Amino acid sequence: MKFGGTSVADVERIRQAARHVKREVDAGNEVAVVVSAMSGKTNELVGWVNSASRLHDAREYDAVVASGEQVTAGLMAIVLSDMGIPSRSFAGWQVPIHTDDAHGAARITGIEPEALTSRMAEGIVPVVTGFQGVSPSGRITTLGRGGSDTSAVAVAAAVGADRCDIYTDVDGVYTTDPRIVPKAQRLNRIAFEEMLEMASLGAKVLMIRSVELAMAHKVRLVVRSTFDDPDAPQIAPDGTPGIPGTLVCDEEEIMEKQIVSGVTLAKSEAKITLRDVKDKPGVAAAIFGTLADQSIVVDMIVQNISDDGATTDITFTVPESEYDKAVATLEGAGDRIEYAKLSGSKGGAKISVVGVGMRSHAGVASSMFKALADKGINIQLITTSEIKTSVLIDEQYAELAVRALHTYYGLDKQ
Amino acid sequence: MKFGGTSVADVERIRQAARHVKREVDAGNEVAVVVSAMSGKTNELVGWVNSASRLHDAREYDAVVASGEQVTAGLMAIVLSDMGIPSRSFAGWQVPIHTDDAHGAARITGIEPEALTSRMAEGIVPVVTGFQGVSPSGRITTLGRGGSDTSAVAVAAAVGADRCDIYTDVDGVYTTDPRIVPKAQRLNRIAFEEMLEMASLGAKVLMIRSVELAMAHKVRLVVRSTFDDPDAPQIAPDGTPGIPGTLVCDEEEIMEKQIVSGVTLAKSEAKITLRDVKDKPGVAAAIFGTLADQSIVVDMIVQNISDDGATTDITFTVPESEYDKAVATLEGAGDRIEYAKLSGSKGGAKISVVGVGMRSHAGVASSMFKALADKGINIQLITTSEIKTSVLIDEQYAELAVRALHTYYGLDKQ
Repeated sequence: MKFGGTSVADVERIRQAARHVKREVDAGNEVAVVVSAMSGKTNELVGWVNSASRLHDAREYDAVVASGEQVTAGLMAIVLSDMGIPSRSFAGWQVPIHTDDAHGAARITGIEPEALTSRMAEGIVPVVTGFQGVSPSGRITTLGRGGSDTSAVAVAAAVGADRCDIYTDVDGVYTTDPRIVPKAQRLNRIAFEEMLEMASLGAKVLMIRSVELAMAHKVRLVVRSTFDDPDAPQIAPDGTPGIPGTLVCDEEEIMEKQIVSGVTLAKSEAKITLRDVKDKPGVAAAIFGTLADQSIVVDMIVQNISDDGATTDITFTVPESEYDKAVATLEGAGDRIEYAKLSGSKGGAKISVVGVGMRSHAGVASSMFKALADKGINIQLITTSEIKTSVLIDEQYAELAVRALHTYYGLDKQ
Repeated sequence: MKFGGTSVADVERIRQAARHVKREVDAGNEVAVVVSAMSGKTNELVGWVNSASRLHDAREYDAVVASGEQVTAGLMAIVLSDMGIPSRSFAGWQVPIHTDDAHGAARITGIEPEALTSRMAEGIVPVVTGFQGVSPSGRITTLGRGGSDTSAVAVAAAVGADRCDIYTDVDGVYTTDPRIVPKAQRLNRIAFEEMLEMASLGAKVLMIRSVELAMAHKVRLVVRSTFDDPDAPQIAPDGTPGIPGTLVCDEEEIMEKQIVSGVTLAKSEAKITLRDVKDKPGVAAAIFGTLADQSIVVDMIVQNISDDGATTDITFTVPESEYDKAVATLEGAGDRIEYAKLSGSKGGAKISVVGVGMRSHAGVASSMFKALADKGINIQLITTSEIKTSVLIDEQYAELAVRALHTYYGLDKQ
């Protein structure tokens, strides 16, 4: 059971979270808990580090920032014990959770589960600090933002958990953003692959890394709300007894596959087109390598087949905030990248439909284009993957497009 | 070099403290640093623990509360590195600083100095978290309030330091409280034994434990202010080049011993007298054992020789806040403690004069009584030790008494 920053923002919320743990323990489950820092605390610590020095040692950044989870873990253990549930906190180095030495963005290399599993077998709930581990040289490392989800999945895999429940401030994964489409529905189940696409397309419920790790280790994830009544009957979104949240699981576990499970939206996209680029090996590498060197993240990339076999057009998108930098970078690299003309514009929105059912259903892309055309929305770019189709449109039509597609694919709540 | 909570209250103050470190490093010294939590942070953490549960596990209290020093140590290492001084933070478990498992009030059992001394030899300044260590079972322990001074002395002893400089918000140890006697002088040197008496009598500059440890390991302590200009010439209190603070050292190092080095004051004392107590072995043990069982701390104890050989009077003092509890405890123990009458009153003040010179100078006590009598101040109780004489007087004369004695013993600043 993992509790994020808003779920442990103060002692009262920690108590609320602990009641969820108590319910699971009372039901006869062996539980390990992973906690984030109290919301706001990590920002406070990062702020101090930045004001101490702009060019700080990442090892010391980690030593400072990792203290936030240590506080929450201790408080959670105290609250659980107070409720009659024996509990013990574990910092990353105490488990230990081994990581590489990439301070500030470390990767978990292994978890020794014995300290946790032996406690769990004795009826003690271990509370583990998320977001951190210990490097080969015995220094504290952090996993980077959102790393607590990754910690939770890694701990779940290490102890052989049946499930990894991610408690957060939303009650599951929705077919689309409910602020845009009030009829958005909470999904009962979603496949790992779909969740990955949803996460990378802007649904911020889970961090991509944690979903990847869960998929690799076949750890079933549940996304659910800390703020639900912990003592209420556990009812699944479909109304049956079960987990009141969204289960992220292997595709096999999903009986009735929706063709489309969700519609996602990413705004503030800018597109850049390079015309008459020399159509020869290495040209794309030169363009995107140059941008990567400037740490500019490129999203959609479209390259048309050239008319004449000599030149081609390449279009791609970047976040609006990176647009000016990307244009300047390409204009400054004229000696290495040959093109006739650079054009571009801000104000784009990327709309995607996602669903594992697409694999077995032809025509999703074309039906998507038709649904948008019916609303008079022009499509600027198209990219597709096995379980996803994305289009770039004018930002002013973004919400209209999401609502239209949500209805078109039968996702509206009745 | 140890920096207390007010010396590291925010990043700017940490920078100020770091400039003191830089001065010592630039002067060719090998330095290790010990830091407290930012002032207020430990209280915040303790507040959270208390609101989590009134009866919390001391191990979890320690896990939470120890995070404060971790933050400061990392920030100090960052600031030092930013000034061009290579630095590395060490939590207690990383040194390691071994303690027993008395969580919340642990005692240091040993420090492995190699991690620190090898860094120091390489020109790296280790920054160690004060107030904490690691227990035999690998849990974080804390040493109790003021434990950072103790950590600093223990680290100084372990690395074989020439001095342990305690940076705080006052610039040394004074002959008495300057708020009461504006003519109070900063002491150039004070003997460990005197400092122990001063500390136990209410001069809150150093914790008693740390002075005891320093005396046992012959670690010379310096008390000085973080807020002095780090780059100013180093001038001792006597005007010569030297350390601008008070050196707490072995008596041997003090050439010219003052008969009296300081006058201390403790207010809000209450006295309790038991009349006609049976004068037989075990009676004092019964009285003070009963009080100790209730965690009531008794200070001065006076027992007169009995007139008749059958009964005696016993008088002692307790803090005013404990008075009612002490009276109730004794009245409730009438079956075990036989006495004719219990009387007592609040509103006392204990005045003490302290000085190793008393050992070789007779008549300090009698001259003290005369000085007080000259001001018309009545003495209620007297206790003496080898280097200290204390009297209990009416609280309203407390400041008058301190000023009179300060002048009488020639301690006033010229």
